[in-house]
Amino acid sequence: MMPAVADTPVQITAFAWVPDFARGQVRDLRVRWALEEAGTPYSVRKFNAAAERPADYYDEQPFGQVPSYRDDTVRMFESGAILLHIGESCDALLPTDPAGRARATTWVFAALNSVEPMIQQLAIIDLFHSDSAWGRERRPEVATLVRTRLGRLSDHLGMKDFLEERFTAGDLMMTTVLRILNHTDLVAEHANLAAYKQRCESRPAFGRALEAQLADFDGEAPAAMPKVA
Amino acid sequence: MMPAVADTPVQITAFAWVPDFARGQVRDLRVRWALEEAGTPYSVRKFNAAAERPADYYDEQPFGQVPSYRDDTVRMFESGAILLHIGESCDALLPTDPAGRARATTWVFAALNSVEPMIQQLAIIDLFHSDSAWGRERRPEVATLVRTRLGRLSDHLGMKDFLEERFTAGDLMMTTVLRILNHTDLVAEHANLAAYKQRCESRPAFGRALEAQLADFDGEAPAAMPKVA
Repeated sequence: MMPAVADTPVQITAFAWVPDFARGQVRDLRVRWALEEAGTPYSVRKFNAAAERPADYYDEQPFGQVPSYRDDTVRMFESGAILLHIGESCDALLPTDPAGRARATTWVFAALNSVEPMIQQLAIIDLFHSDSAWGRERRPEVATLVRTRLGRLSDHLGMKDFLEERFTAGDLMMTTVLRILNHTDLVAEHANLAAYKQRCESRPAFGRALEAQLADFDGEAPAAMPKVA
Repeated sequence: MMPAVADTPVQITAFAWVPDFARGQVRDLRVRWALEEAGTPYSVRKFNAAAERPADYYDEQPFGQVPSYRDDTVRMFESGAILLHIGESCDALLPTDPAGRARATTWVFAALNSVEPMIQQLAIIDLFHSDSAWGRERRPEVATLVRTRLGRLSDHLGMKDFLEERFTAGDLMMTTVLRILNHTDLVAEHANLAAYKQRCESRPAFGRALEAQLADFDGEAPAAMPKVA
């Protein structure tokens, strides 16, 4: 595991406590994974997900979310933007030729904007609204939307190992999006997608990133339950 | 208006017909706007939104959506990815210094991933499910989620003209996301956000892009209504 030492120039923010269902899902995992692929050490500043953020954190991350990211050159947020930034100096994440880089960038956005929205809707219903009338009524339609997108993704993947000729930041992002469905069997409906997800998750950099996120959940559970989506 | 001539190297895809509510909202508007800011001519290949795509279009855009984009160097899709690609050779969209470029990239993703998902959920309810029991039950919660994000965005914007020191691709993307709320008064609840949106929409490049999208809706309405989200 990369040592998270305080004097490294790369610093990210993460949570010291989240509910069990969110462990291994919080979006700093994406950035930790990218940094592990790049071999870049980083330090972590942590908040309790259920507590108020320090007021000045909104100057750094206007929506109060994690992760934010800083290094010697930039201060930024949004896991997708951070992945592209790390990828600019790491050809394990982004090919250096313009055509290949454009494809990898395309898949980072496709994961976030053509696949995750439906998956996130399903997860919100399953985690927070499964007992509500609206959740029960809406879920089948959302599951159909998810299945349609996964079917298209499976068709594109075909027999390839990765979304393009080689692993890129696009596969990293897509894997973290598919993981949001871990509580369902929807990915398993497509053998090639399930194998693809496992192929990406078996990368040593992913294992180190996941281990580091889980180890960082060393904070106390709040007295009151956190607000949910 | 940029002439959309067939022998330019930049080609995008768009729709020849969409329902009235979608006119001025389809995501090729973002790419047209970026190309107008860059002064880059482009040609358009069109489909009817309500008709089946040609089978080979899924090779180009695995989810069957518009826009896709090609030029002499790249073939890609996802409006966010295309914006960043165009921005790489256009400092009207992306600053050339790494710190400024990281901020602009951050806002492209923030618009798409921290603001649009809630707004899109509200629009889906209002456009397609306003008469359903689940839509009526869920809408107030989604409106609250939208208001929270718009409040944070308004706080960040403050008295600035743009999200950072100058107009970037991040403002372009955020404006198109806020436009999805045109059927509501939610943006108008924050005077600075409403003025910001108008400031961006008053750019000549936006006007040319919108005019070009609307002019391209010259196809026939389908006999049957299209399927909806």
